[in-house]
Amino acid sequence: MITKQYFKSNMILGHEGAGIVESTGPGVTKFKPGDKVIPLYMPQCGNCKFCLSPKTNLYLMPDGTSRFTCKGKQIYHFMGTSTFSEYTVVAETSLAKIDAASPLDKVCLIGCGFSTGYGAAINTAKVKPGSICVVFGLGGVGLSAVMGCKAAGASRILGIDINTNKFALAKELGATDCLNPRDFKKPIQEVIIEMTNGGVDFAIECIGNIDKAATECTSVGWGSCTLVGVPAGGESVPVSPMKLIMGRKINATFFGGWKSVECVPKLVTDYMAKKFNLDALVTYTLPFDKLNEAFDLMHEGKSIRTVLVF
Amino acid sequence: MITKQYFKSNMILGHEGAGIVESTGPGVTKFKPGDKVIPLYMPQCGNCKFCLSPKTNLYLMPDGTSRFTCKGKQIYHFMGTSTFSEYTVVAETSLAKIDAASPLDKVCLIGCGFSTGYGAAINTAKVKPGSICVVFGLGGVGLSAVMGCKAAGASRILGIDINTNKFALAKELGATDCLNPRDFKKPIQEVIIEMTNGGVDFAIECIGNIDKAATECTSVGWGSCTLVGVPAGGESVPVSPMKLIMGRKINATFFGGWKSVECVPKLVTDYMAKKFNLDALVTYTLPFDKLNEAFDLMHEGKSIRTVLVF
Repeated sequence: MITKQYFKSNMILGHEGAGIVESTGPGVTKFKPGDKVIPLYMPQCGNCKFCLSPKTNLYLMPDGTSRFTCKGKQIYHFMGTSTFSEYTVVAETSLAKIDAASPLDKVCLIGCGFSTGYGAAINTAKVKPGSICVVFGLGGVGLSAVMGCKAAGASRILGIDINTNKFALAKELGATDCLNPRDFKKPIQEVIIEMTNGGVDFAIECIGNIDKAATECTSVGWGSCTLVGVPAGGESVPVSPMKLIMGRKINATFFGGWKSVECVPKLVTDYMAKKFNLDALVTYTLPFDKLNEAFDLMHEGKSIRTVLVF
Repeated sequence: MITKQYFKSNMILGHEGAGIVESTGPGVTKFKPGDKVIPLYMPQCGNCKFCLSPKTNLYLMPDGTSRFTCKGKQIYHFMGTSTFSEYTVVAETSLAKIDAASPLDKVCLIGCGFSTGYGAAINTAKVKPGSICVVFGLGGVGLSAVMGCKAAGASRILGIDINTNKFALAKELGATDCLNPRDFKKPIQEVIIEMTNGGVDFAIECIGNIDKAATECTSVGWGSCTLVGVPAGGESVPVSPMKLIMGRKINATFFGGWKSVECVPKLVTDYMAKKFNLDALVTYTLPFDKLNEAFDLMHEGKSIRTVLVF
């Protein structure tokens, strides 16, 4: 099981969660005990050149200290959040206060997966009304990208996955066509180009196993490919300059391009107003001690998202 | 000599030129004998989905016919222009009428090299006022990109070339710093990142020998890399998804993003109004029968552009 190697590391893992403030340290002014919150793995200091720029949602990292110990030994934080824990310690800048009425076992997905896919379509790809989109990978991030394409007004949304079991939900959430690359002899990019009379306007890659399909299935002239999935081991993607010279472009998203402090509370509000469907992404809800089981369900392709509750 | 292999091909080469209409075929309505013109290797039919879209300057290619023969044998056109010839035959859609007072031995550069580099900065990269730019390669295209960055209001323009002889002209045209990668032990992208406190806003690659330098020297958060040079043999560029996820993007230009029919005459007008300096790009002017010598001067790094006149 992949999870076993994680737990050999001397840090508390987990980065997508939601919780309630138990206590605050000296100097904390924005939160009080009882506040419902979502930890932000991409925080905002509010003062660096990145936080001050409307062009990015990234920020300059603070120097690293730790607030965790186990049997006297220092344990590290993971992405400033460490949500695989009943209690965690986060910096004030790594937290967003959210609607007190929101259900933590759903809005926790706004801490990463939902926001990343949904924002990849809306903020990074900037999907336009009437456009043709394709989403590679129909896990939690990919399905959120499908919802983002739909919210942005796409007229056609192709969903690609090798697990056909995911197609029904993808269609429920907005996909107009679902394709399994294993059903075709020719490369999936060629199938997509034929189906769309020359290629899609926007491709969103949510797998992390990047090949040329996502960069080459877009239209000559203006096709845009947004990378969301992170490949293992820092692999490079082979990109053909001639494909780019014919008018294509490539970018990528981090946390869907949302400025976390301002946007996370707003996304929670939008969820409460039923502007998108988080509930559909939660396949299982399990107690925290079933963490390894949750990972197995994911790796076996049986779960979109399994939410762990304490 | 590289040129020798070209002349074994059964086509008339050349795609950057200017001339005077000698006669017109049946159905031609936009031109008359005596008109000064620039051939357009990226023409516009005016009717296809690309011509009708403001998002691109590309167009759908017509099916190929030829109007050239030599000793009874068909000779092909090159990019619809074939300018290495005293007389050529082009489609009406492959021609732009220009100012009758313009000097053909200068504005011919608007047929490709100048427009491509200048437009790469202005139209494709969309360089913003006050930004920091770097241009890789200081040949005719790269120097035109330097002029484009300056015209767009860049506050700092780094020019990169392994031929230090090009630096004086680059500085005359707008480069604020010129660097020879061979003068440094560390990779040039690291030098650029240090010099610019974190990387440039816009990188423009005008070499065609693409490595990671151009894609990795841009700033986290919003760095943009525009590919202009075309690598030999359709090589792929290795792109790191993690570099993109940190807010960088990559695109590429074809003819600088200019809609050729409308923009070429306007660029000639701008040249006549001294809005940019084409003359500085012309190192030599030679009679056409010195074509091979012109190529040698270029390959030896002695010429930015050699204009051939009949």
